[in-house]
Amino acid sequence: MSSVVEPQTTPKWIGKAVKRLEDGKFISGKGSYLDDLALEGTLHVALVRSLYAHARIVGIDTREALEVPGVLAVYTSADLPELYAPGSGGRDAKVVQHPVLARDYVRYTGQPVAAVVATSRAAAQDALQMVYVDYEALDAVPDPLQAVQDGTLVHPELGTNHALKRRTSAGDVAEAFAKAHRVVGARMVQQRVAPTPMEPRGVLAAWDGIRESLTIWSSTQMPHDLRSAVAEALGLAENQVRAVTPDVGGAFGAKINVYPEEILAAHLARTLARPVKWVESRSESFVATVHGRAQVAELEMAFDAEGKILGLRGRVVADLGAYILETTLGNAPGTILMLQGPYEIPAIDLELIAVYTHATPTGAYRGAGRPEATYYLERLMDMAARELKLDPAEIRLRNLIKGPFPYKTLTGAKYDSGAYPETLRKLLELTDYPALRAEQARARAEGRLLGIGLTTYVEITGYGWDTGGVRINPDGSAVIFTGTSPHGQGAGTGFAQIVAERLGIPLERISIVQGDTLAVPYGMGTAGSRTLSVGGSAILNAAEKVRAKVVRIAAHLLEAAPEDIVLTEGGWGVQGTDRAVSLEQIAQAAYNPRKLPSDLEPGLEGQATFNLKEANYPFGAHLALVEVERETGEVRVLRYVALDDVGVVVNPLLVEGQQQGGVAQGLGQALYEGISYDEIGYNRSTSFLEYNLPRADQVVRVEAHRGNTRSPTNPLGAKGIGEAGAIGATPTIVNAVMDALGVKHLDMPLTPEKVWRALRQGQG
Amino acid sequence: MSSVVEPQTTPKWIGKAVKRLEDGKFISGKGSYLDDLALEGTLHVALVRSLYAHARIVGIDTREALEVPGVLAVYTSADLPELYAPGSGGRDAKVVQHPVLARDYVRYTGQPVAAVVATSRAAAQDALQMVYVDYEALDAVPDPLQAVQDGTLVHPELGTNHALKRRTSAGDVAEAFAKAHRVVGARMVQQRVAPTPMEPRGVLAAWDGIRESLTIWSSTQMPHDLRSAVAEALGLAENQVRAVTPDVGGAFGAKINVYPEEILAAHLARTLARPVKWVESRSESFVATVHGRAQVAELEMAFDAEGKILGLRGRVVADLGAYILETTLGNAPGTILMLQGPYEIPAIDLELIAVYTHATPTGAYRGAGRPEATYYLERLMDMAARELKLDPAEIRLRNLIKGPFPYKTLTGAKYDSGAYPETLRKLLELTDYPALRAEQARARAEGRLLGIGLTTYVEITGYGWDTGGVRINPDGSAVIFTGTSPHGQGAGTGFAQIVAERLGIPLERISIVQGDTLAVPYGMGTAGSRTLSVGGSAILNAAEKVRAKVVRIAAHLLEAAPEDIVLTEGGWGVQGTDRAVSLEQIAQAAYNPRKLPSDLEPGLEGQATFNLKEANYPFGAHLALVEVERETGEVRVLRYVALDDVGVVVNPLLVEGQQQGGVAQGLGQALYEGISYDEIGYNRSTSFLEYNLPRADQVVRVEAHRGNTRSPTNPLGAKGIGEAGAIGATPTIVNAVMDALGVKHLDMPLTPEKVWRALRQGQG
Repeated sequence: MSSVVEPQTTPKWIGKAVKRLEDGKFISGKGSYLDDLALEGTLHVALVRSLYAHARIVGIDTREALEVPGVLAVYTSADLPELYAPGSGGRDAKVVQHPVLARDYVRYTGQPVAAVVATSRAAAQDALQMVYVDYEALDAVPDPLQAVQDGTLVHPELGTNHALKRRTSAGDVAEAFAKAHRVVGARMVQQRVAPTPMEPRGVLAAWDGIRESLTIWSSTQMPHDLRSAVAEALGLAENQVRAVTPDVGGAFGAKINVYPEEILAAHLARTLARPVKWVESRSESFVATVHGRAQVAELEMAFDAEGKILGLRGRVVADLGAYILETTLGNAPGTILMLQGPYEIPAIDLELIAVYTHATPTGAYRGAGRPEATYYLERLMDMAARELKLDPAEIRLRNLIKGPFPYKTLTGAKYDSGAYPETLRKLLELTDYPALRAEQARARAEGRLLGIGLTTYVEITGYGWDTGGVRINPDGSAVIFTGTSPHGQGAGTGFAQIVAERLGIPLERISIVQGDTLAVPYGMGTAGSRTLSVGGSAILNAAEKVRAKVVRIAAHLLEAAPEDIVLTEGGWGVQGTDRAVSLEQIAQAAYNPRKLPSDLEPGLEGQATFNLKEANYPFGAHLALVEVERETGEVRVLRYVALDDVGVVVNPLLVEGQQQGGVAQGLGQALYEGISYDEIGYNRSTSFLEYNLPRADQVVRVEAHRGNTRSPTNPLGAKGIGEAGAIGATPTIVNAVMDALGVKHLDMPLTPEKVWRALRQGQG
Repeated sequence: MSSVVEPQTTPKWIGKAVKRLEDGKFISGKGSYLDDLALEGTLHVALVRSLYAHARIVGIDTREALEVPGVLAVYTSADLPELYAPGSGGRDAKVVQHPVLARDYVRYTGQPVAAVVATSRAAAQDALQMVYVDYEALDAVPDPLQAVQDGTLVHPELGTNHALKRRTSAGDVAEAFAKAHRVVGARMVQQRVAPTPMEPRGVLAAWDGIRESLTIWSSTQMPHDLRSAVAEALGLAENQVRAVTPDVGGAFGAKINVYPEEILAAHLARTLARPVKWVESRSESFVATVHGRAQVAELEMAFDAEGKILGLRGRVVADLGAYILETTLGNAPGTILMLQGPYEIPAIDLELIAVYTHATPTGAYRGAGRPEATYYLERLMDMAARELKLDPAEIRLRNLIKGPFPYKTLTGAKYDSGAYPETLRKLLELTDYPALRAEQARARAEGRLLGIGLTTYVEITGYGWDTGGVRINPDGSAVIFTGTSPHGQGAGTGFAQIVAERLGIPLERISIVQGDTLAVPYGMGTAGSRTLSVGGSAILNAAEKVRAKVVRIAAHLLEAAPEDIVLTEGGWGVQGTDRAVSLEQIAQAAYNPRKLPSDLEPGLEGQATFNLKEANYPFGAHLALVEVERETGEVRVLRYVALDDVGVVVNPLLVEGQQQGGVAQGLGQALYEGISYDEIGYNRSTSFLEYNLPRADQVVRVEAHRGNTRSPTNPLGAKGIGEAGAIGATPTIVNAVMDALGVKHLDMPLTPEKVWRALRQGQG
């Protein structure tokens, strides 16, 4: 595998903190999002959503709604063919897909029951309350531990709520626990959280009856996947569907799924032969977009007298919600896969049960399984440190994997490269950890509740393959095509840096095309932090193809041998001479067959793919210093230091942006956020009044550091950074608060009330 | 060069008369043309155009126009940077480009002088008459023979009206004429004609101020060329401009040029940061879109006693109009190149003078130089037949080139393949020529004026290189990408047949993408009948790349050797067995790296180019039977037989469509059409009241036949058919009318009045 930078040259663009090329439009409010798209004659859809967690639909009366001015139609499931949002799982999973509109039963509050179509969004929304749905309420099981009991069933036809059961065992766990010096354990809840991207979801679909083709614009992470799903649902060929992604205002994994509303809009656009638009309101987003996390783990860890881990056992119950969307069944196996973390663990026995519940489907959310695993492990490590009276840093250092790499875990992961103990030591050094502990002791002496939290983690990023293209126009300007679909991360800037590095094109002469199944051959979108290591490597491969042609043309124009052509400040020159041609001259020649060697095709475009054969594994160590206000229970994060190693960094500014944002979201889960269902399954968190997203003043400025342990899995040597912050921050902050309180465990979110009660009750 | 069809197999799709896939939308009126595009906030432009052929602009008063409700601005050249519509010529040409708005002087009636920008088209048009332009009228030279004298100069700074002078000589012409048995000669006028596509021109431009990029939609034949021209005019990089071609309602060469209105709309869209639209009215089209033909030839031909040609001499004066657009300087050299026609001519001496005149710029129009050459030659051949008392068929047969091919002419053409005498004999056989002559004699005896006209021609088609792409989606449906930009010809159907032939995909699973500089890497558009032989060959090459991969994957799936894989009715199978996989299965595997041989990249797309190194030369023979009404001078075409040889025919229906349409346009020029300027340069033909386009009942149904002499220039073996009808029909019909009248020569159009006067005056 060749390296992006030739050994003898210093990279000019790779590694440089270039400001995001994307930001001009975003910071001036000029992004063009789904709801900014306007097509003449567009019809607007609003959805009647279930108020019940579980009920039988006795009848639906749409007559009054149809009289609202502007309303053209009201659809119920009776008016539709069988249409489902796609969802899948392994062969061992019991999959129930999400019907576009509820048939006979509703199974979570917020489930779409009827669709009002009107000439304006206001008219459609006005008519919602005129659609009378007669429900017969039924018992609901919104709680996963209750669902596990298989009392009330979400899908009686399955005979169980268990959609997936797996057991992962290796080593002699019974013996490990039998000979243990200490065993620590707890039931730990990973509460449901809402992804809450700044831009909720939305879709616009337009049918061309003459060409029998559909264009669908969606705020999605995966346009090609949406294209295929819509084609399949509507019985169209894939060349009859074009999916286009406008600017997307955040997604965090939640926009990977193809949702009922997208299939519905596509169907209605074809049926009505008019453009059809649906845009999710913020309240809808809390019930209709997947929730993240949603697990309960009951785990125990066995340690010897020196604090070495002997074994890990227990079970993870994953709450799937009522239906399987595309990412619903992905989180829990990911948790199991990563449950060895960065530690030497000689024996494991882990059970996974994923259950249907009467609740919004869950799915990928920043980390999608990995934050859960890290949280459980890091909480257990702190519990063990407390039991064994070891410093939390020390117990980790005693257990961290030292290699060699690749390193295979008992859970099936294969860590590509790592430097775990070195990274923790570096963090301790960066933070002057002993001094921090001394400061904590001084503060405690003064009655102040300071806490220090530590986390060491390893996570998994990158999967699949993707396409990249580099086109140099006749004037030397360039266009990059990517099958990934970044939606706010600024990846395009990194892509441009890669192309600038290899082709010597100024960044301002490079533009990016993505999110269009017509312009881009294929792509797997942006998710799982795959964009740089997979998409960027495909672009690098395309750039190499173009570079080879550039060199050939330069050699021809300069009457030199291709081996002697080098990229210099002055253009493409003959090594050791001052003869050179500019990329503009080369591009002009490329489009003029008379100026080309006879065996070269005209044009100057390279298309390539990159197939990531094995995932890569970022890792790092985080530290938080928190203070708990005794009178109010409020937690303030005083300091947050993240040392994340994601391999070769193309643009440190982009990586730091992900570090900052990831920590903010992890902190949000630790301290503030949580979807709350009441006992009959009613979702009580449907606005920012009830759902406590951290405010700007509650988010900490991260001291962000980066390692540079190259990944061997791709030519860039890169790993993904999208999830690291969210993975590290949750346990780091909870560990710090527990440290401040001197308490074994409290479940998140650590609200002031919960912390205050813990202080009062001396709980733990 | 490989053949599209393997020798041992019978083609399934190539050569089949498949109905046009494009027609569903067109015949139901659902095409989406430039004026159908609607962008929110679009501003509309109307143009104040010169009423003078030549005048000094003393002043422009825009105050009243600015008060018209809805009018936002009125631009004159003083408000613009220096902006020109691009035009070029050889090194020996004196090129004056067209300013977007007239500066100080106007040089033809219809030249844009000021631009009104308003919120509606109606408001913009209303305000036109409120823009007061103070002109000082100057002497004009609308006539090319007058312009040649260099009395009044169109561009005084050049010191001459002569933009281009060339002389082409070979053989001893003086001796040829000295020893001639007979010399025939005439001054022949190729009148100015208007291309009059069903859809006039139009442009819509939208500027994205944040991304600093422009999208321009235009009813053009060459989106990539437009992209480059707009980028250059506005000082942008090519990746900042995207050109998109919606459905285009005909062009005939006139939409090759980049026009002042396109540059102006792009500039205004950027300046005003609003979408800007201009759509040409029918009247504007008569003054603002290039005119075709516009030549006067004074030629003589020397013959020996047996009717063999000894030499050709004389000059062609080409009328360029007032400015050089992109195709303006192309016609006249093309006429000289093709002036040897299909005949053995041992000596030539030809002078070309292209002159500026005070008239609308001329440019490519169906044939662009070739119809003129053929017309002159075929008129001279008939004059010679008359002089030498030989049958027109006989004199041609005595002079037609018999090969061998490639055959180089004295004018620089290199005929790739041909069968000229065979083709004429075939035509005579098809029409039972002796019987026709007998019928004519009987009719004459009855006092009826029947005339028979013959033409034999050779012409030139195809140039440049182009791109093609074939993408097979995961579900096996396919998309073809072409850098050509067909605009009504139905070429997409032919492209689909090529891909169906090579890949076994049903036509209804294939769609076509063209006319978008984002989706298509590069292209030279559709002109010069290059679409099939260049664009189609690029697509064929792309299909071959995909086919090679399909075969590799099929072999892998079937555990067979690639050499043993054959395309059968049942899919891709192993020769001699019943084991086969469908294209759908192959496509699915292609997108799943785990199912692929390890050395194959995932995906199933092929991009290719084809560079036509040498042009190809279609040829044919046409015959018309006409009757002239003695009392009115009206000409009725009773029968028209065309035998055109354009090599391998992919779809005979598409070819016949071009034959029918081409003959209709040639007939229009022969009998009806002509732009007329009065002596002071005023264009008197600005609507269909004055410009006599043939009506449906005046167009003859052509008996269309086709030869099949393969071209060696491209793997399809194809030549172009776009121009043949227009090239053959004009001299064929004029020859027939002259035959009916017994007259040597009358200039076109052969209006009833002109014919009636000739009959009365016994002229000729």
